Amino acid sequence: MDKPSNSLSAAARNALRASQRSDVPSFIVMDVMQAAAARQAQGGDVIHMEVGQPGTPAPRAALEAVKRALDVEKLGYTVALGLPALRERIARHYQERYGVVVPPDRVVVTTGSSAAFVLAFLALFDVGAKVALPSPGYPCYRHILTTLGQIPVILPTDDPSRWMPTPEQIDEVVRCEQVSGLVIASPANPTGTMIEAARLAQIASFSRRHNIWFISDEIYHGLAYGPPEQTALAYADEAIVINSFSKYFSMTGWRVGWLIVPEALVRPIERLAQNLYISPPTVAQVAALGAFDGIDELEANKHVYARNRALLLEELPKAGLQRILPADGAFYLYVDVSEFTTDSVAFTKEMLQDIGIAATPGVDFDFERGRRYVRFCYAGTTEEMAEAARRLRTWRRLAQKS
Amino acid sequence: MDKPSNSLSAAARNALRASQRSDVPSFIVMDVMQAAAARQAQGGDVIHMEVGQPGTPAPRAALEAVKRALDVEKLGYTVALGLPALRERIARHYQERYGVVVPPDRVVVTTGSSAAFVLAFLALFDVGAKVALPSPGYPCYRHILTTLGQIPVILPTDDPSRWMPTPEQIDEVVRCEQVSGLVIASPANPTGTMIEAARLAQIASFSRRHNIWFISDEIYHGLAYGPPEQTALAYADEAIVINSFSKYFSMTGWRVGWLIVPEALVRPIERLAQNLYISPPTVAQVAALGAFDGIDELEANKHVYARNRALLLEELPKAGLQRILPADGAFYLYVDVSEFTTDSVAFTKEMLQDIGIAATPGVDFDFERGRRYVRFCYAGTTEEMAEAARRLRTWRRLAQKS
Repeated sequence: MDKPSNSLSAAARNALRASQRSDVPSFIVMDVMQAAAARQAQGGDVIHMEVGQPGTPAPRAALEAVKRALDVEKLGYTVALGLPALRERIARHYQERYGVVVPPDRVVVTTGSSAAFVLAFLALFDVGAKVALPSPGYPCYRHILTTLGQIPVILPTDDPSRWMPTPEQIDEVVRCEQVSGLVIASPANPTGTMIEAARLAQIASFSRRHNIWFISDEIYHGLAYGPPEQTALAYADEAIVINSFSKYFSMTGWRVGWLIVPEALVRPIERLAQNLYISPPTVAQVAALGAFDGIDELEANKHVYARNRALLLEELPKAGLQRILPADGAFYLYVDVSEFTTDSVAFTKEMLQDIGIAATPGVDFDFERGRRYVRFCYAGTTEEMAEAARRLRTWRRLAQKS
Repeated sequence: MDKPSNSLSAAARNALRASQRSDVPSFIVMDVMQAAAARQAQGGDVIHMEVGQPGTPAPRAALEAVKRALDVEKLGYTVALGLPALRERIARHYQERYGVVVPPDRVVVTTGSSAAFVLAFLALFDVGAKVALPSPGYPCYRHILTTLGQIPVILPTDDPSRWMPTPEQIDEVVRCEQVSGLVIASPANPTGTMIEAARLAQIASFSRRHNIWFISDEIYHGLAYGPPEQTALAYADEAIVINSFSKYFSMTGWRVGWLIVPEALVRPIERLAQNLYISPPTVAQVAALGAFDGIDELEANKHVYARNRALLLEELPKAGLQRILPADGAFYLYVDVSEFTTDSVAFTKEMLQDIGIAATPGVDFDFERGRRYVRFCYAGTTEEMAEAARRLRTWRRLAQKS
């Protein structure tokens, strides 16, 4: 053993302070959420278009399942992979919705898709591994990866590529950057755009050929307004699929989601989940199982989103917001506001202050170009969306271009 | 930029497989739990003494709070640090129980103490940092640290040191191993032993002098059967305190806990929590707030544990299990079974098979010496404990020493 100096310790040389890796950017949407809450606390009104969450609670069927359980069940820990009945029900969902066979033992119930990402990134990648991510995209991918010591490799997307990575881009980062994995979300956050089935199949097969982990973020599945979405599992049995009860199922705060993984990954993920989470919240798993009996209500929610989407696609251009990305799914409009500002953070602050609309600056999703974009979430009521459109039409910042 | 060979990619050289860091040991208690569940599924009866969880549900006050919320609230995301009302209530708890002032803005609500550990370890330590842990101890500390790229440094404890680290041991690892932090749990898992107030004060002040992060795991607070427990915050304002609603509050499956951290760490932890968890489960936070109105019921639970503890301390020696560690608190007895076996894993399997008692082999808690120890959890009913004692008295493995 080395003989260190007796009078010096590593820590004694430094004052107590936070780790370097805790220096990740905040998830800005949550800061906007707090500013909006502060405005409301002071009596101001706010139309919430910042956070990606439905304005509705969990479906009645989920709430009834919880009420029944509260009276008779202990609701202690479940096993780490989740309630067997829920894993079976999720497996059946793949048969029903996509016609794809998934054995229940490849289903892992997680504490929201957040835990699904942490578990997948830990199980697939060691420290120093590179993972390709499209930009704009969900910021937490990037931040979770860097926190865990992995290296995000950004794939910029744009209008010509319809805001989805191309097989050529992926080929390039695999060859030149030696990436070990790839994350694609469709419908995507913040853009709402969807990948074409042919491109999805092509990327899935490319990933298989090159032994790249293909992680398909499908948390906005169920919310497509044109051609239906297809799961990556239809094209690649070894894809890692991440989904959640937060969006279509309208259960954000319950924190329950799931992973579909190849057989060989189940045990490594189980061990990680035992140690890092013990089990997903039991009451949320009970609610999730119940939610599958609330599809009528969830489809009604989706019709509201479809109406809101149509309303805003009609009204925002009248307010001057004309450059909206293809809004195929999810519940977002991602708007190019470069005519009005080069600082979307200041722009959204003013919007909240002037007209009480909370929206999220694009910098959360695209560090470089995001200063010229704003994301609006249309998962509230149609009345709120109509009122938001009215306010935007009279907002001075849009009337007088900067 | 380096010019890599055009025809080779890092991943293409290997088949798709799990990361090296996913090769952590399983949390064995959860494997025992599954074996016990399998026995029950086949119609066998089981006395559950394996998992560290109360046999009782959340207190009625918590369940009533949830029922009220289900009817009127959306239960969407909360802010990442948790419901303000819950943070305030937890802060008040420190005043009421310990006479220690903690400002609410230093309270972080977490998804169980599991998330509290992940957040604290990420916020305090970079990859490669060394953290001292007592052994025997909670295995997930070790596994979470290694998963996150940190290095556990083991402090073996024993009878002369009353199964708690000594200031001399800590001094040594600080000087010779350059550890950056230290975790101590009191009451401890699996031993149930508690640290004396004077030793806690001494270690806290040593940590401050040497700029070592002192993490005090207080998740078994509220469950002490002799002198009352004291929070590390009474001796060191900069200590990191971890607690949970799982044990005293009888809410394991709800997944809600908390951290108390120095002011300077709040924002780094908030950023990490936003990205890795979004927010703790909202319904569990509502339940936790309600649980503070259920103290009478929780004290009644504690009286059952006290009765169970007394019963087993009287009865186990009659069955031949005489070497029990000082059981000051929590709801565990940690028993030296070296007279009967040198393989506690096989021993507990036989116990489950022969007499339907599920208990946890010590290897979960102490990799080396654990093969000679078994942990019994006495958080079930007194009838179950009496029946367990009866069965152990007639068990062939104890009658005929191996």
